Amino acid sequence: MTAEILCIGTELLLGNITNGNARWIAEQLAALGIPHRRQEVVGDNRDRVIAAVQEASRRCRVLITTGGLGPTPDDLTTEAIAAAFDTPLTERPEVWADIEAKARARGRELSPSVRRQALLPEGAAVLPNPTGTAAGMIWSPVSGFTLLTFPGVPSEMRAMWEATAAPWLQQAGLSQGVYASRLLRFWGVAESALAEAMADLLEGTNPTVAPYAGGGEVKLRLTGRAETAAAAAGMLAPLEAEIRRRAGQSCFGVDDESLAAVVLEQLRRRGETVAVAESCTGGGLGAALAAVPGASDVFLGGVIAYANAVKQQLLGVSAEDLERHGAVSDPVALAMAAGARRLTGATWAIAVTGIAGPGGGSEQKPVGLVHIAVAGAAGVWSEGVRFGGSRGRHWIQALTAGEALNRLRLRLLAS
Amino acid sequence: MTAEILCIGTELLLGNITNGNARWIAEQLAALGIPHRRQEVVGDNRDRVIAAVQEASRRCRVLITTGGLGPTPDDLTTEAIAAAFDTPLTERPEVWADIEAKARARGRELSPSVRRQALLPEGAAVLPNPTGTAAGMIWSPVSGFTLLTFPGVPSEMRAMWEATAAPWLQQAGLSQGVYASRLLRFWGVAESALAEAMADLLEGTNPTVAPYAGGGEVKLRLTGRAETAAAAAGMLAPLEAEIRRRAGQSCFGVDDESLAAVVLEQLRRRGETVAVAESCTGGGLGAALAAVPGASDVFLGGVIAYANAVKQQLLGVSAEDLERHGAVSDPVALAMAAGARRLTGATWAIAVTGIAGPGGGSEQKPVGLVHIAVAGAAGVWSEGVRFGGSRGRHWIQALTAGEALNRLRLRLLAS
Repeated sequence: MTAEILCIGTELLLGNITNGNARWIAEQLAALGIPHRRQEVVGDNRDRVIAAVQEASRRCRVLITTGGLGPTPDDLTTEAIAAAFDTPLTERPEVWADIEAKARARGRELSPSVRRQALLPEGAAVLPNPTGTAAGMIWSPVSGFTLLTFPGVPSEMRAMWEATAAPWLQQAGLSQGVYASRLLRFWGVAESALAEAMADLLEGTNPTVAPYAGGGEVKLRLTGRAETAAAAAGMLAPLEAEIRRRAGQSCFGVDDESLAAVVLEQLRRRGETVAVAESCTGGGLGAALAAVPGASDVFLGGVIAYANAVKQQLLGVSAEDLERHGAVSDPVALAMAAGARRLTGATWAIAVTGIAGPGGGSEQKPVGLVHIAVAGAAGVWSEGVRFGGSRGRHWIQALTAGEALNRLRLRLLAS
Repeated sequence: MTAEILCIGTELLLGNITNGNARWIAEQLAALGIPHRRQEVVGDNRDRVIAAVQEASRRCRVLITTGGLGPTPDDLTTEAIAAAFDTPLTERPEVWADIEAKARARGRELSPSVRRQALLPEGAAVLPNPTGTAAGMIWSPVSGFTLLTFPGVPSEMRAMWEATAAPWLQQAGLSQGVYASRLLRFWGVAESALAEAMADLLEGTNPTVAPYAGGGEVKLRLTGRAETAAAAAGMLAPLEAEIRRRAGQSCFGVDDESLAAVVLEQLRRRGETVAVAESCTGGGLGAALAAVPGASDVFLGGVIAYANAVKQQLLGVSAEDLERHGAVSDPVALAMAAGARRLTGATWAIAVTGIAGPGGGSEQKPVGLVHIAVAGAAGVWSEGVRFGGSRGRHWIQALTAGEALNRLRLRLLAS
């Protein structure tokens, strides 16, 4: 009852892209309790896809493929799979109707080559693609072996997995027991420090606790296995309580809750609003808030004050503060936050000004130095933070947005 | 004369880490001109490692393995490889001396388990590890098949590759010429339409042209193989010229050039500046510009006008336009762009207002409808675009930023 993953794409063999799909699917299989023993990558080559699929059919119960479902000639996964089991392709009217409807909604002309995407092997079920035109299939060409095909575009693959493949795999009885999983998310604590505080918990075998880090966040994945979903979930509750007790306020959310979503929900419950004033992030802080569906009842907007002249003319930062303290300073951050709050009428405003690099740093104000201010009815607070320059501009901008949101979160918890 | 990669590690099968090693090695093989046809991943399991190595030995000339060379019980790559070819392990005094010297230099006690790392199959050459204690091997257990083993730690693997493996592969005469590669990037054209326009070129075998899509962009990867790097690059130049001739202005850049970087460079050459006014993207358009190092000499900033009140108070959008045409309309987009240009003094301003969803759509104004305006000294232009709602909020926001940048790019090309 094991699964394998076959990723199809010459770009993977050329090293043009990292195989993030294999990792994501591997995580999902683990969460579903489906043992996964092998991954393969082959190029957009008909004979090698046929060989890889035939070999897998002799080894495993379920084969997940990604890639090669698009409309171009090098997209040959469906055709190769059909050929591997000597099965003809037939056009599926429902798939073609869906492709036509999506093209209409986008105001696009359909090129004739797209019609290939409506072909599936005889006997295969459609694995619908809710967001794109490349449908996949669920097909058992030989007894005891089922194929699920996905496009290589990560967002489409994930949407298809969640809508159809995951429920199908669960119902197919492939899981060994039931897994429950919960992700706890932390800001403002190092992975090593968190791991040390939880050292005894990390040694558990069921439930397990595994740390991850990425994008400035640290995460702990809690996974429990039991006979029923309720029993598995029940194993996690006391473990989560203990972790939260040890971690305190650094634990900001669970599962899909972003820092921005948590802050927006805090404000929503209080009936309050927020605005931003951004220098070094150039809009990234506002974009993080606007990424959350329904942000518009809480997030009003703000000012991107990338140039100093904009800081002065729109936000009312004084020439004297800019001259005396420099743009990256507490006085300027404070004036930016106050200005955004005044201009928009928001309950709260967050301002960020820093040196994202690679240029622009000095010994006193190195790349990675950022000043972050929070303004509210009760006052204005600002403090500098040093992210270091070694990980680069993108990293500094992302950390700045996260740190700014976290400061507002802690301020809201305290008030 | 082909190569395969076998990555060994249960953490890859559990999805705990992304397989960055496979990508890095794939890139190196491509640069060396060694054809690479297949990658595999198996867990820390003796029988499955033995099976995977034996299968590879019947298919390829060179097998690169990563992982499983450490001192712990689940590090079993060397032992499994020796068993796969019925060969005994022998201790290598020079490897053991190196391990002892490194432990001394770090002031570490050697645990007895480390001694396993000095064992290699009889007849295997040592692939030295300059930075760690896990040495690899270069071994031809059967005629016409050579194994190179590396630890999973990326920094150690890379150091070993560069110091010993790459020169060895070159001297072994495995390279089939040298590869040159170039990525052409397009906006505003569907992958299927581009592929049709280039259908004859996609059939070439050397150089090859392969299409990709993602994030609203379409890309063509051009790859040529020749005796020398200059000859390979020379093959690409006329091909690129022909593709550009057919694609016209939809080709916006090459390799790592983002749309934002291209637009900033256009403006920089003209000595002009740009500002933004953002509703549905909430700052994402500005963030795309600010992501480019050195953006500050061209990108001034702007206004995030997420709430209608901010559109009115900061950007001067009239209540009448909002009332009569709605926030998502050409008149409002035009007023937003004009307002941002006036407020910041920028040469150009781009404004976006749309329905990112999932809520807020209507039959007349569905989710995915966005109006985008460009304002310059010669006038103001606005037009609606429908991205469709099926791919979700994040996608609509990203496409909106890209489309807005592309409209300014085309406007600059025309003026």
